[in-house]
Amino acid sequence: MIMKRIILLFVLMSGASLLFCQQRAQQANRTTKKVEDLSNYVNPFVGTQGDGNTYPGAVAPFGFVQLSPDTEIKDWEADSGYEYKDSTLYGFSMTHFSGTGCPDLGDFLFVPSVGHLKSQSGIKESPGSGYITRFSHNQEKASPGYYSVYLPEYKVTVELAATERAGILKFTFPKSDSANIMIDLTHVLQWKAIWSHLRIENRQLVTGFHLIHGWAKERYLYFAARFSAPFSACGIVNDGKPVLYNTYRFTSKYESAGTDIQFYARYNTDNQPIIMVKVGISAVSTTNALENLDTEIPGWNFDQVVANTRKKWNQELHKITIEGNREEKETFYTSLYHAFLAPSVYSDVNGEYRGFDQNIHSAKNFTDYTIFSLWDTYRAVHPLFNLIQADRNADMVKSLLAHYDQSVDHLLPIWSFYSNETWCMIGYHAVSVIADAYLKGIHNFDVQKAYQAMKTTAMNPDYDHVATFNKLGYVPCDLENESVSKTLEYAYDDYSIAQLAKALGKTTDYNYFIKRAMSYKNSFDPVTRFMRGKDSKGIWHTPFNPDDYQNSGDFTEATSWQYTWYVPQDVQGLINLMGGKKQFAAKLDSLFITPSKEVEDIHGIIGQYWHGNEPSQQIAYFFDYAGEPWKTQFWIHQIMKTQYGNRPNSLCGNDDCGQMSAWYLFNVLGFYPVCPVNDQYVIGSPCAKQATVVLSNGNKIEMKANNYSEQNIYIQSMTLNGKNWNKTYIPFKEIMNGGKIIYFMGPEPNMKWGTEQNSQPFSLSAKN
Amino acid sequence: MIMKRIILLFVLMSGASLLFCQQRAQQANRTTKKVEDLSNYVNPFVGTQGDGNTYPGAVAPFGFVQLSPDTEIKDWEADSGYEYKDSTLYGFSMTHFSGTGCPDLGDFLFVPSVGHLKSQSGIKESPGSGYITRFSHNQEKASPGYYSVYLPEYKVTVELAATERAGILKFTFPKSDSANIMIDLTHVLQWKAIWSHLRIENRQLVTGFHLIHGWAKERYLYFAARFSAPFSACGIVNDGKPVLYNTYRFTSKYESAGTDIQFYARYNTDNQPIIMVKVGISAVSTTNALENLDTEIPGWNFDQVVANTRKKWNQELHKITIEGNREEKETFYTSLYHAFLAPSVYSDVNGEYRGFDQNIHSAKNFTDYTIFSLWDTYRAVHPLFNLIQADRNADMVKSLLAHYDQSVDHLLPIWSFYSNETWCMIGYHAVSVIADAYLKGIHNFDVQKAYQAMKTTAMNPDYDHVATFNKLGYVPCDLENESVSKTLEYAYDDYSIAQLAKALGKTTDYNYFIKRAMSYKNSFDPVTRFMRGKDSKGIWHTPFNPDDYQNSGDFTEATSWQYTWYVPQDVQGLINLMGGKKQFAAKLDSLFITPSKEVEDIHGIIGQYWHGNEPSQQIAYFFDYAGEPWKTQFWIHQIMKTQYGNRPNSLCGNDDCGQMSAWYLFNVLGFYPVCPVNDQYVIGSPCAKQATVVLSNGNKIEMKANNYSEQNIYIQSMTLNGKNWNKTYIPFKEIMNGGKIIYFMGPEPNMKWGTEQNSQPFSLSAKN
Repeated sequence: MIMKRIILLFVLMSGASLLFCQQRAQQANRTTKKVEDLSNYVNPFVGTQGDGNTYPGAVAPFGFVQLSPDTEIKDWEADSGYEYKDSTLYGFSMTHFSGTGCPDLGDFLFVPSVGHLKSQSGIKESPGSGYITRFSHNQEKASPGYYSVYLPEYKVTVELAATERAGILKFTFPKSDSANIMIDLTHVLQWKAIWSHLRIENRQLVTGFHLIHGWAKERYLYFAARFSAPFSACGIVNDGKPVLYNTYRFTSKYESAGTDIQFYARYNTDNQPIIMVKVGISAVSTTNALENLDTEIPGWNFDQVVANTRKKWNQELHKITIEGNREEKETFYTSLYHAFLAPSVYSDVNGEYRGFDQNIHSAKNFTDYTIFSLWDTYRAVHPLFNLIQADRNADMVKSLLAHYDQSVDHLLPIWSFYSNETWCMIGYHAVSVIADAYLKGIHNFDVQKAYQAMKTTAMNPDYDHVATFNKLGYVPCDLENESVSKTLEYAYDDYSIAQLAKALGKTTDYNYFIKRAMSYKNSFDPVTRFMRGKDSKGIWHTPFNPDDYQNSGDFTEATSWQYTWYVPQDVQGLINLMGGKKQFAAKLDSLFITPSKEVEDIHGIIGQYWHGNEPSQQIAYFFDYAGEPWKTQFWIHQIMKTQYGNRPNSLCGNDDCGQMSAWYLFNVLGFYPVCPVNDQYVIGSPCAKQATVVLSNGNKIEMKANNYSEQNIYIQSMTLNGKNWNKTYIPFKEIMNGGKIIYFMGPEPNMKWGTEQNSQPFSLSAKN
Repeated sequence: MIMKRIILLFVLMSGASLLFCQQRAQQANRTTKKVEDLSNYVNPFVGTQGDGNTYPGAVAPFGFVQLSPDTEIKDWEADSGYEYKDSTLYGFSMTHFSGTGCPDLGDFLFVPSVGHLKSQSGIKESPGSGYITRFSHNQEKASPGYYSVYLPEYKVTVELAATERAGILKFTFPKSDSANIMIDLTHVLQWKAIWSHLRIENRQLVTGFHLIHGWAKERYLYFAARFSAPFSACGIVNDGKPVLYNTYRFTSKYESAGTDIQFYARYNTDNQPIIMVKVGISAVSTTNALENLDTEIPGWNFDQVVANTRKKWNQELHKITIEGNREEKETFYTSLYHAFLAPSVYSDVNGEYRGFDQNIHSAKNFTDYTIFSLWDTYRAVHPLFNLIQADRNADMVKSLLAHYDQSVDHLLPIWSFYSNETWCMIGYHAVSVIADAYLKGIHNFDVQKAYQAMKTTAMNPDYDHVATFNKLGYVPCDLENESVSKTLEYAYDDYSIAQLAKALGKTTDYNYFIKRAMSYKNSFDPVTRFMRGKDSKGIWHTPFNPDDYQNSGDFTEATSWQYTWYVPQDVQGLINLMGGKKQFAAKLDSLFITPSKEVEDIHGIIGQYWHGNEPSQQIAYFFDYAGEPWKTQFWIHQIMKTQYGNRPNSLCGNDDCGQMSAWYLFNVLGFYPVCPVNDQYVIGSPCAKQATVVLSNGNKIEMKANNYSEQNIYIQSMTLNGKNWNKTYIPFKEIMNGGKIIYFMGPEPNMKWGTEQNSQPFSLSAKN
C-alpha cells in the first residue's frame, strides 16, 4: 500500500513538473516511465473556436470551479466566455459552462493590472476603454488543471489552477508600486448581477456574494478569496464610486453591497513579484466558500495544486486508454477530458448545498451535482458514466431525485443548474438517465422512490402538454410548440419508464408506458413518409416541408429530416412505417446526401445529417437495423474523421456538457448506446487499433481492431469474448463483467456480417 | 402546580373572550377576578398620530412579527406605515418598527379584496387606483396581540393576531365567487424590493422571500403562509403580468422570481365566509419560516392565538402595576406595552439566525434579538430591562456581541437591525448597554470578551473620528460632522467603559477611559457658556448661535441649547464650567422658558427643552445637582402632563423603540437613570399614587406617593426602606433586592429636601 502511494506521489510530481521545469520533468519521467501521463494528450483549447463552446481554463474532474479567462461577455455564440479568435480578455472568472448552447456563469472576475485602476470592463472593440487587455495564443498554455497567459500591456503572467471547489491564481507582476488585483462581482456572462456584497475580512481575506438573474432566474454564489500577502492598499468601488467615509454618517470601507461592486487590492511588487489569490466558492454561504477553500487548498504551494489536480485527471483519463498516433490520442483524451467536466460537484465539503427550493439542504451520503444538460447527456454521457463513473452517476441520480423532492411542479429536472430549472429543451430525459443507471447495475439509490418520481414526471398535468400527449397519443401542433419533437421524445422517455417498471415487476405500468412508447407512430405521415405536425383534430400541419428548419415550430432545432429518425426504441417500427427495409435504407441514404438549406447555428452537416446537434446523433446506426451495417461503418468513420480533431475549431457543434465528446468516445470503441435505456450497444466501427476500458466494477473491456487503418474501416468479422459474433449489437451482460471485443477490419464492406436474421439490434416492433 | 395551570388557562380564555364574546368574557371574569386583565388598559393607537410613529397592529412581547395595517408607503413621517389621520390602507404587512425616525420593514403585504383583482397598490390620493381601500376608525379595534378592521368597499372584516415569529389573519368575506387574498412581495415601506421569489407549495401553502435594499442595505426575509382552505384558484403576477405557460418553453405557474411579484389566492365564499392565513417569517429560509409557523401556531384556532398572546402580554404588564385613574392607567400600561416591543426576537425557533456577515449562525444558549436603536434605548429602555427584563437583556447583550464578532469593522452595533448596520445616529452606546447590564447584576455573558469588544469599539481607527477625539480630546468640527454631539457622547460612552474596567480591576484602562470621559470640557466655550464646535486648530466654530438647529452641522438633531447639558457623568463638572450652581441653575431656568426657533421634526417643545427627541431627556433632573430639586419636580410633572397621554396623538415625538415610553415609566416611579451606567437613579417626582415593580430577581419595589394629586407634585420628604431619605438619588443597591420607597407629597416645594451637601447625585468632578 505504501509503495503504491509513493508511486502516486511521483506521478503527481511529474504532472506539475512537466509544466514548469524541463529538468524536473525529465527526472520525474525517469521514475514514472511505466505510468503514462495522459494529461499530455489533452488539449483544453479543442472546441474553444466556433461552436464547441468549451473553455481552456483550469478545472478538476467534475469540478464546481472552472477557472478560466473570459474574452466575451455578451456573445451568445461564446457561451463559455472564451472564443479562440479573440485577442483580448476581460479577466479570469471562477465558473464556466462546457459546451452549452446558452451562456451563463462567469462568476467573480479576477483582473490583474498595473498602474491606474480601471473598474469598468470596457469593450473588446475598443481596448483601453476599460480593464479589458490584449493577449496572444503564443503566450498562452493550457493543460488539465492548469492555464497560463502573459498579458503584455501589464507585463503580468497569470497562472491558474483548480481543485473541485476552489481555484488559485498566481500573478507574476513586474516591479511596480501599484500592482492591482481587482475582483469584479458584477461581471457575469451575458446576464445581470441583481445584487452583490463584498467584505474585506482582513488584509488578506475577502468574501463576497452575488445574486444573478440569468438563464438561471435566481442564482446565488458566494466566494472567499485569500491573498498570499497583505494588501498595501485596498478598497471597494460601488456603482463606479470608491466606498469612502464622508464625515456625515460613517460608511464602512470594509464592506459594501449594491448592484455594481468591485474590490481591488494593491501591492508594491518591487520585492515580491508573485502575488497569489486562492478562491473558494459555494452556493450556500461565504462561510462554506471559505471552508471549501481551506479544505481543498490549505497552503500556498501553487505547483502542488497543479500536480494534485493533474494526478486526479490522470486517474480519470486512465479509465479508457487507446492505441493511436498523437493526433488520435489528443482527440481521444481531450474528448475524455470534456466528458468528465459536467455535471459538476455542487455540494460543499461539509455536504451542504442550495436546493431547488433555495433552502439549504444537507446531502446525506452523496455528493450533490449540478449542471444537468439532460436533453444532450442522456444519450451518451450518462451511458458512459454507467460504465466508468458508476459512483458519480449514482450521486447524479440522487441529485436528480433531490431536485424532484424540492420541485413545486413535482418534476425531475429538464435542464437544471445551480438550484434553478431553465426549462430549456424538451422531454423529460431524467427518466432515461435514472432507468438506464438502474438497469446497468447502479442500485445505490432508492429505486422505488425514483420510479415514483419518473412516473409523476411523465404524468404531470401542466408540463408541455404531456397530458394531451397521453390523451391523444401525440402532442398537437396547434396547442404546443415543437410538437413533433416532443411526441417523439416523450415516446422514448416512456419506453425508459416502461423498462424500469418491468424490472420492478410493475406490469400494469409497463403496459401503460410501453403503449405510450409507440406513440411516435401518430406523428408519421404515411404520404410524405416524414414525421409531421398534427393538430388536435388530427389534421396534418400544412404547409409542410421536411427541409424547413423547425417547420412552423413543430421541430426542436431541426427539420423533419433529422427528427423523422428519432425512434431509438423501435427502429423496426419505423422501418415498417416506411414500407420495409429497402425503402427505409434508401431514405437513410438520401439523408446523408440531400443538401441542407443553410441554417444558422447548425453545423457538422453531412447532407441532411447534422452532427453538430443531438437529434441526428443516433441515425448513422440505423443501417444496422436495415441490414446494411457497412453503411453505418462508412458514415461513422466519415463523421469521426470530419467532425472531430485536436484543434481549437475541431468541434463542429456545442460539446453540450460532454455529449459530443462522449459520442466520439463510444465510437472509438466501435459501439454506441443508440437506445440508452435498453441492454444493447449498437455496433458501428472501431476507430482505434486497441482500447482498454476500466469499468467501475474493476473489470476491463479490451477492444482490439485487427488490421484497422484509415482505409480499413469495414468490419470483416468479430469475436466477442472468444465467440464469433455476427450480431450488430453487444449485449450489456457480455461486457458488464469485462469483455474481449476483437474486430477484424478490411478496406471493403463484408456485406454478410451482421445481416442475418436476428442480428439486428432490439426494436419494440421486432420483439412483438 | 396543576391548579396554577388551570387558572392560567382561564386567564387566557378570558383574554380572548373579552374581545369576541361578551358572555364568555363575563364567565371568564368571574373565574379570574383576582388577576386584572391589564391589556384592557393598553391602547395600541397611542402614538399612531403624528410623530410617535407607533403602529396599532398585533404583536407579541418583543415579537419578530408586527402584523399591522399600512396606510402609508412613502411618507417619511409615518415610519411605522400607519398614520391615524389616514382613511385608506394598502393592506396588512408582517413587520413594523415601533417609533423609529426612519422608515423600513412592512414586509409581505396581505391584501383582501372581492371581485376583480388589482395587483398594483394605487395611491391614497386616488382610492380606486389600485388595491388601496377605505377604512374608518369607527370600525377598527386594537388591543395587545389583536387588531381588527372592517373594509367597507369589499365588506370584508380583517382580524389579526400574532405570536413571536408568526401571525394569523382572519378574513370574514361576504358571499362571493371571487374573494381574493393577495400577497404583495414588492411592498415595503419607503424602500425597494431588489428581488422576490414565490412558490406555491401546494393548494394551501405558499412560501416566499424578498431581498430589500433599504435603510438596511441588504435585508433578507422569508415567509411561509398556510391558508385555512384550498384555493379555488391561485396565481402569480410577475412584473404586472400573470405567470402563464406560453407553449414555447414551459413556465412553472407555481413559482416565480423577479423584481415585482404578487401572489393571489381566490375563494368562493358562498359557503365559507371565513378564510384564515397564518404566516411565519424568518431571516434565514422559508424552511425556518415554516418551522416557526408550525411551532408557534400549530392549529387554526384564531381566538386561541389571540388569547395566548394576550396572556403573555398580561404576564409582562404585571411587571409594573400602578394605582391611578383610567387615563393614567391607559397611559402607563400603553407605555409599558411600547417599551416591550423592541429589540425584537430575531433567531428562529431552531436557534438559527442571519448574522451581520449574512451567514447563518446558530444562537447557542441565547435568543438573538434585532432592532437596536441604541442611541435612544441606552438611556432608559435597557436600564428598565435591567430591572424587569434581565434575562432578555442578557440575550440582547449576547446579540450585540455576536454582531461584534461578525463585524468587519470590529465594532459593536450603532443602530442595527436585521443583520445590517445603518450607521444611524452617533456614539457607540452599546458600551453603555453592556456595562450597565453587568453593573446591574446581569452576568450571564462573557464579560471579558464583552469588555474587549467595548474597548476595541472605542479605539476604532476609522469610525467617526474617534481616533482624533482620542488624540485631541474632542472631535474637530472641520473634520467631522456633528462634532460637538459626538465629543459629548463619546465622553459619556467612555465613562461607561471606565466603569466596567473598574469593576473588572483593569486600572490602567480605567484611568485611560475616565480621562476620555472628561473630554466634554474641551467643547465648552467659556465665553458663550455653551457647548460649541472647535476645529482641529483649536479655533471655535464661527458663526455660532445656540438657537441654530445643528449650527452648521455641529449638533445631532439639536441646537447647542439641548446638547450643552449632555454631561450625565459629570454634571458637577458642568456646574463648575458654568461658574457655579447659581449660574448653572439660572441657565437651566432659561432653557425651559427661552422660545425655540421653529424647527421641522422637533416636537415636545418647552422653551428650549425638546422632549420629543432624546438629547434633552435627562436635563430636567439637573436641578437636583444644582440644589433646586423642586424645579426638577415641577418640570417633570409638566413634561409628564403635557407630553404623554392615552390618545393617538399623545406621543410628542418618535417613541424610538420604547425610549419615550420608558422615560415615562421611570418617571411615574419618581426616578430616572440620568447616567445609566452608574449605580444611581436620580429622583424626580412620582406620578402615581402607588406602584409595584416586580424585579427580574423576584423581589419587588413598592413605591407609594402619599398625598399625591395633580396639585401635590412636590416631594416634602421620603423614606427609603424605612429610613428617612434626603438624597436626590436612589442607590441601585437599595432596591436591587426589593425596596420600599415612600414619597410624601405636597402642593408647595420643600426647598430643604434634597438640598443638603452630599445629597446630590454622583458626578465625576464631585467625587474627585
